[in-house]
Amino acid sequence: MRQHFSGQLENMRTDLTDLCSLTETAIDHATRALLDTDLGASEACADVDTEIGYRAQEIDHRALTLIALQAPVAQDLRALISGIHNIADLRRMGSLAAHVAEVARLHFPAPVVPGELRGVISEMGVAAKAQAAAATEVLRDRDCERALELIRADARTDALLRELFAVTKSDDWPYGAASAVNITLLGRFYERFCDHTVEIGRNVIFVVTGDFPVA
Amino acid sequence: MRQHFSGQLENMRTDLTDLCSLTETAIDHATRALLDTDLGASEACADVDTEIGYRAQEIDHRALTLIALQAPVAQDLRALISGIHNIADLRRMGSLAAHVAEVARLHFPAPVVPGELRGVISEMGVAAKAQAAAATEVLRDRDCERALELIRADARTDALLRELFAVTKSDDWPYGAASAVNITLLGRFYERFCDHTVEIGRNVIFVVTGDFPVA
Repeated sequence: MRQHFSGQLENMRTDLTDLCSLTETAIDHATRALLDTDLGASEACADVDTEIGYRAQEIDHRALTLIALQAPVAQDLRALISGIHNIADLRRMGSLAAHVAEVARLHFPAPVVPGELRGVISEMGVAAKAQAAAATEVLRDRDCERALELIRADARTDALLRELFAVTKSDDWPYGAASAVNITLLGRFYERFCDHTVEIGRNVIFVVTGDFPVA
Repeated sequence: MRQHFSGQLENMRTDLTDLCSLTETAIDHATRALLDTDLGASEACADVDTEIGYRAQEIDHRALTLIALQAPVAQDLRALISGIHNIADLRRMGSLAAHVAEVARLHFPAPVVPGELRGVISEMGVAAKAQAAAATEVLRDRDCERALELIRADARTDALLRELFAVTKSDDWPYGAASAVNITLLGRFYERFCDHTVEIGRNVIFVVTGDFPVA
């Protein structure tokens, strides 16, 4: 029974890792949809988001059942509770990627990102993908050092967002208010996506140590 | 022991209800900070957000301890798991209210909301406050009908956000890109605040019925 239970916990960890890896795929599609005005990539992102939703629900249900039937304690309990938190974060990451792709789709075939901001948005896309990849590793290996790195790396996205806002808010922003609105939303979507990877890092540290990292 | 446990569950429910009531206070301060360019209200909102953070952490810890030590099942387990979810939502609602207040503070003493948008933003403030109040009731009474009403009422905020975006994106938006960026962010903060009340409604339905409402 105990053997069986630890197998189920192991499966859950694998499934969470796979789910996180799907968010990496989703944000990658979204950034391509946006920067290459690629309608196919936008639809692919929406499909991955739907897939994430289905899988998340299934894993969530399984975690609840395990808590109810196995009455786990200590690290096993923390892993299940954290798993439930992770699922909420991963689900939200899927939605945020889908929001990015949807902005691209709504304006298709017009490009949404003005030339001079392609660099920053592209960097946000790269950073978000890297954060999702790091979160996938952290979920798989439960490596606290790597989790702390992931948490610290989020400062990069915050800096990029500030840069983006400074440009759209400058007096000589030439692309009009509608474009500023789109860029603001896109910036927030990427930044929030990365914030959720930080939550995953924090939750993994909680599983391992029983405590949350300070700041 | 069982008696004691049910008392602890009851305390947790009261504490969650109080925490939710604080988010109502926070968003109320935030809207006043914004529409009355009231610096004191902005600071009051930040203080309430800090208070929410402290209380949330304490309740979260207590919920985990109860799950670990009491191995609850069925509705008790669902109440604790949902409680942990609720805490995450309430914490985020506090942050979102603080974001609104912070936008007001950063521009003080200049008003952030152009005259013609005061009506929509004011309505979003009223809607957000009403949603927080409804969520407080739902947490207190675990009334599924009321929870469904709360979930449906969120459509109003979504409509207001669409209205806001339509205005800022119109060709004759006269206030420039910087203002459009602020209004976009504010609109999203209010909308996300309300989204979290919907999550609270869904989680309470889960506590009572063991299942999530469809759509």
